[in-house]
Amino acid sequence: MKERLTISVDAMGGDNAPKMVIAGINIVRQRLSDVDFLLFGDEKQLAPLLDGFPKVKDACRIHHTDAVVDNDTKVSAALRGGQDTSMRLAIDAVAKGEAQGVISAGNTGALMAMAKFVLKTLPGVSRPAIASTFPTRRGETVMLDLGANVDCDADNLVQFAVMGEVFARHVLGLDQPTIGILNVGVEGFKGNEAVREASRILSESSLPIKFHGFVEGDGLALGTVDVIVTDGFTGNIALKTTEGTVRMFSHYLKGALNESPRARLGALLAAPALRKFRMTLDPRRHNGAMMLGLNGICVKSHGGTDSLGFANAAGVASDLVRRGFNEKIKEDLERLISGPANAGAAIV
Amino acid sequence: MKERLTISVDAMGGDNAPKMVIAGINIVRQRLSDVDFLLFGDEKQLAPLLDGFPKVKDACRIHHTDAVVDNDTKVSAALRGGQDTSMRLAIDAVAKGEAQGVISAGNTGALMAMAKFVLKTLPGVSRPAIASTFPTRRGETVMLDLGANVDCDADNLVQFAVMGEVFARHVLGLDQPTIGILNVGVEGFKGNEAVREASRILSESSLPIKFHGFVEGDGLALGTVDVIVTDGFTGNIALKTTEGTVRMFSHYLKGALNESPRARLGALLAAPALRKFRMTLDPRRHNGAMMLGLNGICVKSHGGTDSLGFANAAGVASDLVRRGFNEKIKEDLERLISGPANAGAAIV
Repeated sequence: MKERLTISVDAMGGDNAPKMVIAGINIVRQRLSDVDFLLFGDEKQLAPLLDGFPKVKDACRIHHTDAVVDNDTKVSAALRGGQDTSMRLAIDAVAKGEAQGVISAGNTGALMAMAKFVLKTLPGVSRPAIASTFPTRRGETVMLDLGANVDCDADNLVQFAVMGEVFARHVLGLDQPTIGILNVGVEGFKGNEAVREASRILSESSLPIKFHGFVEGDGLALGTVDVIVTDGFTGNIALKTTEGTVRMFSHYLKGALNESPRARLGALLAAPALRKFRMTLDPRRHNGAMMLGLNGICVKSHGGTDSLGFANAAGVASDLVRRGFNEKIKEDLERLISGPANAGAAIV
Repeated sequence: MKERLTISVDAMGGDNAPKMVIAGINIVRQRLSDVDFLLFGDEKQLAPLLDGFPKVKDACRIHHTDAVVDNDTKVSAALRGGQDTSMRLAIDAVAKGEAQGVISAGNTGALMAMAKFVLKTLPGVSRPAIASTFPTRRGETVMLDLGANVDCDADNLVQFAVMGEVFARHVLGLDQPTIGILNVGVEGFKGNEAVREASRILSESSLPIKFHGFVEGDGLALGTVDVIVTDGFTGNIALKTTEGTVRMFSHYLKGALNESPRARLGALLAAPALRKFRMTLDPRRHNGAMMLGLNGICVKSHGGTDSLGFANAAGVASDLVRRGFNEKIKEDLERLISGPANAGAAIV
């Protein structure tokens, strides 16, 4: 029998919280019967919601707090005055050993800053990064950073490459994931100084990672490499551009398949196939971004997600805990740092 | 009767050149019977190709040159030693008045640098930018810069906003286009220094433009604003990410609609609707990016495009010439610069 796990949850984070949080836990519970949840937030809202989901009630414990981190709360303010917020208390639960991982759909900047302050970074990591998987034409690709670090230098990008490699190996189950740096062209002289220098370091380093070189924006959907490294500004734009494009495509497809009786009949016949197709690219199925480089499992759900998306993010958190991801990345980073002579230089 | 126009063409630029160039001209010729083309490139390749398209032969004149700009030619090398290349000669034709606009599917960096050197920039513009239209849920949006300027400061972004506004007014036919700056969040404190400072300048300026504020990556597909301003690094990644996502979506859709006899029958019934749908989002229909801020019409086609895409780009070039876009943007920039007291400060 598997050991029971506990995930702490910022129940007030996200546009549709706390309702979608509780409904999301109800969904993920069907798959993960061996996970308990510590919910941090407003008991007056949470208790009645839990009454509506009797199957999940036993797996949840509520820790009341009135304070929340808003989307427009500045990172500095959250760090200074946010000690009693649902987000902060949920992170604290991991530091105290009451939970093995934390999940929030709230303010990304505040979550990263608080998690960094409370959980600390792993040895050798100066800047944690947000990583997530994306559907591609040949499976899945990991991209990082998705928004934690707006300005990045070459050393930051090299660190992201190493962390992304470890993530792809353990989460996608790849033996030797290939790494690429996102750029405006594949030629070595293209791009800004940070990407050119990071590419030089990774090409010349004896780090045991498979560096492919530069990939362009369409390399993400093509699945050109297993891990795409980029700064948090570009990564965030690429992530949201992809989501927006998929939604626009779906919107136009739905319209087209509804424009005439003939099209509607066709859509009806193709409905099972279309359902499968929609699932492949449903952004909710890829919801749940890992904050990589922290000494603890911290998963960020998309702020605008619904219960299904939140359930997937909660699933990511418990999978990472179950796989002992934090121990594995610690070991791997140590091996990479203390490995080949000049590898250490790359990890600042 | 309309005056005849001449467009000069870098017939050797692009992955599938020169064949797709000639085939593309053959397509666009059906719509634009009043446009002639000056083709710069290898006569030994071009002449036999033209023989294959008798309808277009009369509209084309070949200027032979052996030299070409490759995709991996550095900008500096193209400027120094590229005087006899098909790209450079095609640009020269505009400067000499032999053509009213130029089009190339070749090396973007070299095209921009040569065009800037030969055609010069418009008064008040320090850095030209690449602009193109994108399909959105509510029509079309202009985005710039798409790759001419990898590093941009706040003043560059403000200039792009002004040039984008003029472009949207004349090309999309909008009275008062709204302008947004691409960012990782909509709150004022989000993002890097360049976007924050550009937003402050545009908010406080008395320029007669409608500044919306920040938009996120999904704002592009949503059509949140009419003009999206960003640096060339981010813009290029967003453009190619969008293209890659659309192609991935089509790939999976095609696979789904072919997976069973029932799905195939459904697809057959819905075929007319699906065809219309595909056309709406076909990247070739939005091929043809304008190099804004140059004293002349210079259009860049996607390097990997086919004849249909090249035809669209050629159509963009001749439409811009026909509308007198170069004169209009000159007047508008002048009006904006010499307009309200502090507006000049924004245009460096």
